[in-house]
Amino acid sequence: MIEPRTLKGFRDTLPTAMLAREHVIDTAKQVFRSFGYLPIDTPALEYSEILLGKGGDETDRQMFRFMDQGDRDVAMRFDLTIPLARFVAQHAHELRMPFKRFHVAPVWRGENPQRGRYREFVQCDFDTVGTTSINADIETALVIHELFLALGISDFGIRINNRKVFNGLLHRLDLVDRITPVLRAVDKLAKVGPERVTAELSDAGLSEDQTIELFKLLDIEGSDPFEQIEEASHLVGDAGDEGIDELTAMFEGLRASGVTHHAVLDLSIARGLDYYTGSVFETFLTDLPEIGSVCSGGRYDDLASTYSRREFPGVGASLGVDRLLAGLEEMGLIDVPGATAPVLIVMFEAGRINDYLALAARLRRSGIGVELYPEARKLGAQLKYADRAGHSFAVILGETEFAAGTAQVKILASGESVDVRVGDLPGTLHSMIGA
Amino acid sequence: MIEPRTLKGFRDTLPTAMLAREHVIDTAKQVFRSFGYLPIDTPALEYSEILLGKGGDETDRQMFRFMDQGDRDVAMRFDLTIPLARFVAQHAHELRMPFKRFHVAPVWRGENPQRGRYREFVQCDFDTVGTTSINADIETALVIHELFLALGISDFGIRINNRKVFNGLLHRLDLVDRITPVLRAVDKLAKVGPERVTAELSDAGLSEDQTIELFKLLDIEGSDPFEQIEEASHLVGDAGDEGIDELTAMFEGLRASGVTHHAVLDLSIARGLDYYTGSVFETFLTDLPEIGSVCSGGRYDDLASTYSRREFPGVGASLGVDRLLAGLEEMGLIDVPGATAPVLIVMFEAGRINDYLALAARLRRSGIGVELYPEARKLGAQLKYADRAGHSFAVILGETEFAAGTAQVKILASGESVDVRVGDLPGTLHSMIGA
Repeated sequence: MIEPRTLKGFRDTLPTAMLAREHVIDTAKQVFRSFGYLPIDTPALEYSEILLGKGGDETDRQMFRFMDQGDRDVAMRFDLTIPLARFVAQHAHELRMPFKRFHVAPVWRGENPQRGRYREFVQCDFDTVGTTSINADIETALVIHELFLALGISDFGIRINNRKVFNGLLHRLDLVDRITPVLRAVDKLAKVGPERVTAELSDAGLSEDQTIELFKLLDIEGSDPFEQIEEASHLVGDAGDEGIDELTAMFEGLRASGVTHHAVLDLSIARGLDYYTGSVFETFLTDLPEIGSVCSGGRYDDLASTYSRREFPGVGASLGVDRLLAGLEEMGLIDVPGATAPVLIVMFEAGRINDYLALAARLRRSGIGVELYPEARKLGAQLKYADRAGHSFAVILGETEFAAGTAQVKILASGESVDVRVGDLPGTLHSMIGA
Repeated sequence: MIEPRTLKGFRDTLPTAMLAREHVIDTAKQVFRSFGYLPIDTPALEYSEILLGKGGDETDRQMFRFMDQGDRDVAMRFDLTIPLARFVAQHAHELRMPFKRFHVAPVWRGENPQRGRYREFVQCDFDTVGTTSINADIETALVIHELFLALGISDFGIRINNRKVFNGLLHRLDLVDRITPVLRAVDKLAKVGPERVTAELSDAGLSEDQTIELFKLLDIEGSDPFEQIEEASHLVGDAGDEGIDELTAMFEGLRASGVTHHAVLDLSIARGLDYYTGSVFETFLTDLPEIGSVCSGGRYDDLASTYSRREFPGVGASLGVDRLLAGLEEMGLIDVPGATAPVLIVMFEAGRINDYLALAARLRRSGIGVELYPEARKLGAQLKYADRAGHSFAVILGETEFAAGTAQVKILASGESVDVRVGDLPGTLHSMIGA
């Protein structure tokens, strides 16, 4: 006997959790499609040289990397961005630019497992590659907005900033060579608070005055993004003009699209990653800020510089499916039926199997999902199965019902039963499911 | 510079191919759901001991197997059946029996790449575990039937047989200890012809008389399965009674469900795999028999005997997504639009971006997928993009149109244009898309 078990840090997804995950992913795909994004897929395994050195030493160490049967040095992808970069460089001649793609797939990282973090998880990315237009940035924020509304979430905030504003200030303060450590420090603001960030900025070589100026920008708050932008423009000087213009276009575009209170300007959003060069996005659930951003992204100047001399600027974001699912569950917003077919036909008389099959086929053909219980077990056992499985209705026909040409329809939530003429079942069940 | 390339035997899936694959997978999932099957997922990586020795030496050699960071001997799954067996044994106490699951996921085999065969491919399995009832076998055939119809395929045949009939004959011929080599030989019949099968049977120790009797069974043909069953019952004797009864129930159940000419009895279908014990299924595209079975499966007595003392009988099948896609393409049956959003709004005047955004938002809210071109490039370039991308309609508004409150809607297939009042656009585009 071999003990049936999953690897440390890995897990199975059981039906209830999988139904919720499929709901989130299907909703996301539908939103991506409504904006014209196209699906792609890339292999789980890549040459290690493609993946190495892209996410820092820790990412390299966490990679599932090995020699394959042909002595190739290979590794499992740890995100969907590096594969996109390789894909775009490799297939540029086959792609129409701007290239708008989405990619939903598992990635693997040999991290130390923590609560809610696994070594295999699903990423859900969308990007527009091949245009520097701010309109693609606006669209990225719009997609995030529609996505959360489509998931039935009304309390969320997309926090938007622009790196160019931040860089403009650093330019004015003669801190251009300190951009990376300053970004890293500021990125921790929400987590560790201003005191520890101030200490880290001091370690990075900032004077007290420079730190004070920086915090003036980070602290700009307000309910009107245009007033905030105005305030920021005075602080950052000419070097930040492009960023100020882009933020203005962003919030005007969002307003024109009917997006108001769900999009906020947050001048302290830095996103630690070096490669963002313009807009940056983070998305928080209002009632659960502590779980962190559930959808993040931004603009980058050049996606594929490692693989191609051609420049591929772009903008995109990534939905944290597992983190969002955890949040939805905590907020009680996961309302996916446990059964995929709303109706269970009870097998009451084993000898009537062909009548049950004919009825099931007729109901399915009318568009109703139907499960037929496979064995003539006791009625109570079958109803218990239906109740636990999450079916809404059980259809029961014994010899009495067959003789009368009627069926008993049991509403599982209330326990009530109604008699329905067999010929009327498709119509009646349709209205009962609709109600 | 690192050369952007995929590993030998691996490939990227570009949007056109991915749209077709998503269409097949989404259709399959919808059919599975309409019968009450539930989705699950399992990790790509398993302990090697879970996977080893389940598919023969060749499968073991083809496994992507390595030591992980924690010195665990791990491997990537090569099918979805072994993970299901491990899953069922591990989670039996959390599952309702009968447990009906589907699982759509990639698997990996380090085979020598051939035309149309890759080292990574998607499997699409559905199984009913925990019941020995023939009704679950009937349902398996019904799911295959509905699946192909839902994909718009009308010319296909589900070839059905039952191992118990075959075993009954071997029993009558005193060949019970020769079952495995006989099955392996018969499984090749369609591929290599009767002469080579006869030679292989002789190697397996069958006498000429035994071979003649065996071929009598394999050769039973006809258009009425019930006549074929009758003929077979005389040949196989009492030992095959159970198989004969099951085949009868199968074809009666299919007939009751409205399935007639798409399901045929083929007493020569053996399926080489040892573990099938009852019904076996293969599905062929009538116009492309040479690509082999595109959906195969059968009944097994015990799924998880390696991992559990409890018996888990079941029945299921696997859709060969990539093989089917190749077939659909060859038959010209892939008719998926190349664009995910039917409408492209042309960016004619850069300064009107907020008006275009407002229009796009309004159309999307009315349920129409809309892509907004991000840059104010020349009209011709944008229309060429729309045409190549596969959009159906381009919506054009310049200053003249804004002043008049109308939009030009260009039908890309015909090149025709119509003027539509901006307020009427949602309704008009809805009817144009519907038509």
